[in-house]
Amino acid sequence: MPMSATHSIPTVLQVEHDARGVVTLTLNDPARFNALGADMLAALQQALDAIARDDGVRVVVLAATGKAFCAGHNLKDMAAHPELAWYQTLFAQCSKVMLSIQRLPVPVIAKVQGMATAAGCQLVAQCDLAVAVPQATFATSGIHYGLFCATPSVPLVRNVPIKQAMEMLLTGDFIDAATALRQGLLNRVVPAEALDAEVEKLVASILDKPRTAIAMGKALVYQQRELGVDAAYQLAGQTMAVNMMDDAAQEGARAFAEKRPPAWKQHSSGH
Amino acid sequence: MPMSATHSIPTVLQVEHDARGVVTLTLNDPARFNALGADMLAALQQALDAIARDDGVRVVVLAATGKAFCAGHNLKDMAAHPELAWYQTLFAQCSKVMLSIQRLPVPVIAKVQGMATAAGCQLVAQCDLAVAVPQATFATSGIHYGLFCATPSVPLVRNVPIKQAMEMLLTGDFIDAATALRQGLLNRVVPAEALDAEVEKLVASILDKPRTAIAMGKALVYQQRELGVDAAYQLAGQTMAVNMMDDAAQEGARAFAEKRPPAWKQHSSGH
Amino acid sequence: MPMSATHSIPTVLQVEHDARGVVTLTLNDPARFNALGADMLAALQQALDAIARDDGVRVVVLAATGKAFCAGHNLKDMAAHPELAWYQTLFAQCSKVMLSIQRLPVPVIAKVQGMATAAGCQLVAQCDLAVAVPQATFATSGIHYGLFCATPSVPLVRNVPIKQAMEMLLTGDFIDAATALRQGLLNRVVPAEALDAEVEKLVASILDKPRTAIAMGKALVYQQRELGVDAAYQLAGQTMAVNMMDDAAQEGARAFAEKRPPAWKQHSSGH
Repeated sequence: MPMSATHSIPTVLQVEHDARGVVTLTLNDPARFNALGADMLAALQQALDAIARDDGVRVVVLAATGKAFCAGHNLKDMAAHPELAWYQTLFAQCSKVMLSIQRLPVPVIAKVQGMATAAGCQLVAQCDLAVAVPQATFATSGIHYGLFCATPSVPLVRNVPIKQAMEMLLTGDFIDAATALRQGLLNRVVPAEALDAEVEKLVASILDKPRTAIAMGKALVYQQRELGVDAAYQLAGQTMAVNMMDDAAQEGARAFAEKRPPAWKQHSSGH
Repeated sequence: MPMSATHSIPTVLQVEHDARGVVTLTLNDPARFNALGADMLAALQQALDAIARDDGVRVVVLAATGKAFCAGHNLKDMAAHPELAWYQTLFAQCSKVMLSIQRLPVPVIAKVQGMATAAGCQLVAQCDLAVAVPQATFATSGIHYGLFCATPSVPLVRNVPIKQAMEMLLTGDFIDAATALRQGLLNRVVPAEALDAEVEKLVASILDKPRTAIAMGKALVYQQRELGVDAAYQLAGQTMAVNMMDDAAQEGARAFAEKRPPAWKQHSSGH
Repeated sequence: MPMSATHSIPTVLQVEHDARGVVTLTLNDPARFNALGADMLAALQQALDAIARDDGVRVVVLAATGKAFCAGHNLKDMAAHPELAWYQTLFAQCSKVMLSIQRLPVPVIAKVQGMATAAGCQLVAQCDLAVAVPQATFATSGIHYGLFCATPSVPLVRNVPIKQAMEMLLTGDFIDAATALRQGLLNRVVPAEALDAEVEKLVASILDKPRTAIAMGKALVYQQRELGVDAAYQLAGQTMAVNMMDDAAQEGARAFAEKRPPAWKQHSSGH
């Protein structure tokens, strides 16, 4: 896949690749609060599929333009299509995007500059890491319109304690960024002027590690937590042994023994 | 089922229905700290079964009279019946009550005005939402008498982090309401004089939403969290599509598109 | 098994039994930051197996000497053996030690006086309870050397929220003791001069309870949390009924009814 500096797969989603392998996906439909309409979901799926095939990608940042991060599904479109099959297709399409984030071999960092509601809140929950500004707010607000945020509840209950998740789902009320941080939905909350730098710190830390180890590790974490503890250890032990046979890990262990930085780390800091 | 303003299925449990569909179940055996004896469990089961069959019910508040919320099982009764079958029957009866709370199509809010120990602490953990006063205390205290709180551990480990749950279960020590809030056992802690109003806020928020969406959603949340993430998304997507076909959700989506409150919401706020 | 006051199975691990049934396992290889080399793992396994067979043991404290609690695997050894089978054996050996901690019929308390990294952090996560000093730090640092902490992720994601676990695993960065406490990795953080006393409080509380009830309860908690809620209640109810038939629980219930301490408690406080 060619690495153009910036290109868009339709314009509702900006896709930027940098020379380091950082892909920034920017939800760019501020007039509709970056709603996850069929066009936005298709653009996200296309971008995620391309990233999954591209060994040059190291980390993904999921950002947004405008006041809202993402307002979730487009209720206006949904009102216009009162058909079960249409809704099944929509939620299947959306769930596929969410699962694609989890299955990506590189970490995905949500960079949350504003309100995240319904499937927008789900996006934040589904990412591996999330950084937000203090003004960001979070709600699973579908219930205000008679639609329980069922698919958002999937990553939500895997991020925050059940009673806190239930309160959000039943009331549709907003929580602020500090509450979201305390409950487990976010990794960091920083002032708007520090948002770029804080995300960059996480990006730089991931770039500093070997791609293979990160890919094996991310997949393992999500797989093992669905298993009983015996099977989890079995899978984790095999994963770690295979990881250790990788050249980067061999070099890492030798570097540790010889009290020097790994060659791949010297290389990456040479950039 | 007739909707009398107040009636009791025996007197250890007060059952109040209001015109809005709010059922308040009040543990009313303060002399025995509202212990979950066979009579109390039978009264709870009868009330929960009636609620499950009654489409007019919208939300349940589980409250208590006296200084204690609930002291759990009646150890005195248990000492009087040193028989395995008697204990098996007791714990099966109690677990059925707890599972009935989870399976109810309406949310259950614990309103905790005092001490909640052993199966009393379990009741709080098993409710969908919980509000307590600062003076409320929580313990899985059976171990002080040689009886590990095994059944209370079921909802406890599904509410709070494992090490905090283990500490409560192994030591039997009390935690205060602030700690319970921080660990995930409670949604809110408010002064005693604000307890009614805080519970009412949650009640009013739930009344403001369509019953069908809440029922589908509550069931989905507990089902999907027992599944792997793929199956969870599969189930959640289907649930959401079916929910969307409901009249209330159709009206909600149209109302959103037309920038007006849903008709069912205008109706409910008209009360 | 003879109960010598202090003995060592090799010297990298100190094993102390006291008259109350408290076994203190002290990682004692401070020059290598108590790394989990093959010798340390073998010593731990031998000690844990002996504890599992010894009905006189009531509780285990896992402590360490020197500045570090435990630095995890010995990367120098690993660099010297670039063989898949060697790594598979190592991680299987380590996972067996970790699972032995969980399967022990007595609680295991981590007493963390310093840095805990990689499999050292895993040890803390795997223990039933953990107390640390404010200076203790925690990291899953393998990724710095190209080795994702896969096996440490098993208990880590069962202790702390997923996004916090992912951040530790992807970045390898340290968290301090206050953060570890807030996220669920620790039960208590106390000044170094209070560490002995704080661990002793937990030890004394466990000694005050019947061994059988603690053993049934610990096993039940870890088993039931891998099950769906119906099966969990089924297993917990049966466990509790069997527990109730134990002499200590019968005496506990009678003592409760007669408003006196259980005879076994009077006995234990008589020591």
